[in-house]
Amino acid sequence: MKKISILGSTGSIGTQTLDIVGREPDRYSVEGLAAGSNLELLIEQAKTFRPKTVCLATKTLAGEAKLRLPAGVNVVYGDEGLIEAAAGTDADTVVTAIVGSRGLPATLAAVDAGKTIALANKETLVTAGHIVMRRAAERGVAILPVDSEHSAIFQCLNGERRVDVNQITLTASGGSFRDRKREELQGVTVAEALNHPNWSMGAKVTIDSATMANKGLEVIEAHWLFGLPYDRIKVLIHPESIIHSYVEFVDHSIIAQLGLPDMRVPIQYALTYPERRATPTDALDLAKLSALHFREMDFDRYPCLRYAYESGRAGKSAPTVFNAANETAVARFLAGEIAFLEIEAIIATVLERHEIVEVPDVTAISEVDAWARRTAAGI
Amino acid sequence: MKKISILGSTGSIGTQTLDIVGREPDRYSVEGLAAGSNLELLIEQAKTFRPKTVCLATKTLAGEAKLRLPAGVNVVYGDEGLIEAAAGTDADTVVTAIVGSRGLPATLAAVDAGKTIALANKETLVTAGHIVMRRAAERGVAILPVDSEHSAIFQCLNGERRVDVNQITLTASGGSFRDRKREELQGVTVAEALNHPNWSMGAKVTIDSATMANKGLEVIEAHWLFGLPYDRIKVLIHPESIIHSYVEFVDHSIIAQLGLPDMRVPIQYALTYPERRATPTDALDLAKLSALHFREMDFDRYPCLRYAYESGRAGKSAPTVFNAANETAVARFLAGEIAFLEIEAIIATVLERHEIVEVPDVTAISEVDAWARRTAAGI
Repeated sequence: MKKISILGSTGSIGTQTLDIVGREPDRYSVEGLAAGSNLELLIEQAKTFRPKTVCLATKTLAGEAKLRLPAGVNVVYGDEGLIEAAAGTDADTVVTAIVGSRGLPATLAAVDAGKTIALANKETLVTAGHIVMRRAAERGVAILPVDSEHSAIFQCLNGERRVDVNQITLTASGGSFRDRKREELQGVTVAEALNHPNWSMGAKVTIDSATMANKGLEVIEAHWLFGLPYDRIKVLIHPESIIHSYVEFVDHSIIAQLGLPDMRVPIQYALTYPERRATPTDALDLAKLSALHFREMDFDRYPCLRYAYESGRAGKSAPTVFNAANETAVARFLAGEIAFLEIEAIIATVLERHEIVEVPDVTAISEVDAWARRTAAGI
Repeated sequence: MKKISILGSTGSIGTQTLDIVGREPDRYSVEGLAAGSNLELLIEQAKTFRPKTVCLATKTLAGEAKLRLPAGVNVVYGDEGLIEAAAGTDADTVVTAIVGSRGLPATLAAVDAGKTIALANKETLVTAGHIVMRRAAERGVAILPVDSEHSAIFQCLNGERRVDVNQITLTASGGSFRDRKREELQGVTVAEALNHPNWSMGAKVTIDSATMANKGLEVIEAHWLFGLPYDRIKVLIHPESIIHSYVEFVDHSIIAQLGLPDMRVPIQYALTYPERRATPTDALDLAKLSALHFREMDFDRYPCLRYAYESGRAGKSAPTVFNAANETAVARFLAGEIAFLEIEAIIATVLERHEIVEVPDVTAISEVDAWARRTAAGI
């Protein structure tokens, strides 16, 4: 019986995790569920999966939930509540499926509590990779990737020696605007940007996919997860999203992981690793697809990816700034406040104005993060 | 220091093996070299790599070699000599790179002597998979594949549980005539058939590639190497030969091995496994290729592959007959005696005339083999 807690249970990764869990109820026990403000769905999930702890964003929402859930369910809220859902349950694995850097304290609490992390909250590693990876190593805690690209790399490394790795390549679909030239991005709408060709994901990730900021966050995440320098992490455009990523070894042999785009495969792998189990997904039929395509990444077309590499290489507090400026700019784009191309302009400006903080601790990260958000909001 | 003996040192796999060995002379010691009748090349190889034992096809050739090699080199010949080169040296690994079923007794002798087998001689498993795999298991001997497809599968299985395998897929380039319709195969010449689009291989394998008999032999080889039933071994046409083969797991995750077509990668992997080392091969650049293509296997276009599956499923002595009839027919085609399309007709006729021998031993295999060759020669 695998005992899990899900942070972000009503989001895209969260609901797909519960889809997996619900198909084999005898294999899983849900100890905790944390949502934001989607009270209705959280209550439905809680009635089905009977977690001992549920968390909501605010005291008001938590009060309402308490009235509608059976007595005995521990209803918590806010940042404190999230930490309790992460670290205060009997879960052995915590699925961190919250979007954004506010997943960091809860993830660290789960690591400190010795829980295996099924990591979907990439911002945790982006902003605090140096802290999270060190603490995980100290506690002997496994950080298992949920992102399809990182799960692919992780699978390709099975049974291989890390010293034999030459480089890894993350594939990128190119996002909603992959067939548009740069000059055709003026005035694109939110609805157009949200129309991802391959993957069904949350709004923030879908916009990040269109700007390639998402791939940038993944590059930084991969740096921490796999301990590779940035010049050994490549990005390749692969419109079909069938090869999810690959590893090149020193003998020039490449091991790749492939499949139809369905997040339930990497989600489940993080839950069943090192074993595999059947998934409710369709099998890939390459003959039916008939062709897979690839093209060089274009850093001029996708400057957000360039900023991500630059931030990653600069290290220290720079990736936190990249991430916070991006989160704020995307929120502003989704709210209709700024144009699509202003996202990258805001990131560039905030990075430029930032004064690097040497090896920041959690407090410094939080301060830098807040500064970057304020700055990005005011541009 | 890895001590090796190479059976078939002057052929395509043999020379490429020595290319690998020659680049890192401190890592390898060549204990034995066995060739057929290419005396000049064998002597050159012996002078460079200083094996203690060399083997040639005939007494006459061996006598000549003895005169031209330093005193103290053990020069042997014929089937007996081949067994000595396989089992009678200090080699810990024997590369079985002989083409055809006459590699069987030497391979069995090497297994009995406890030597790791780097298997390129697929006919050994095709004709006597039940004997070779049982003896290897009894002796605790590893059989490491050298064929690019089987090496790919072997690499994809690294760190995975065999029970998690759903099916494997061997890719096939389609061979020299892949863009011709069946009716366009009437009257094709030997030179045309030998013009393989992707791989540089020996004549016999290149013809087998054009008829798809080679993929059939590989399917039977895979059945024995990986212990999978035939309905879980698939073949897919992939003209570029970049994805060398892949494994689909129960979760519908696919792990594939990719690279430019260069046999030195799988050859070296069999020598360095479980480690990897740099190879003198070019790295694969998918963006440069821009696309990979796939199409369904057509068993009407390639009846030899259908015969191979049927022989494999029938088991017992049937694969021996398939292989012997094919070897004879290909030799006759290369000698200009028969037309290209008669290869498959001969195989079909010999298989039809054969009376299955239940679980044949080595003597029975040898008798069936001889019968099939006589029959194929007389059609």
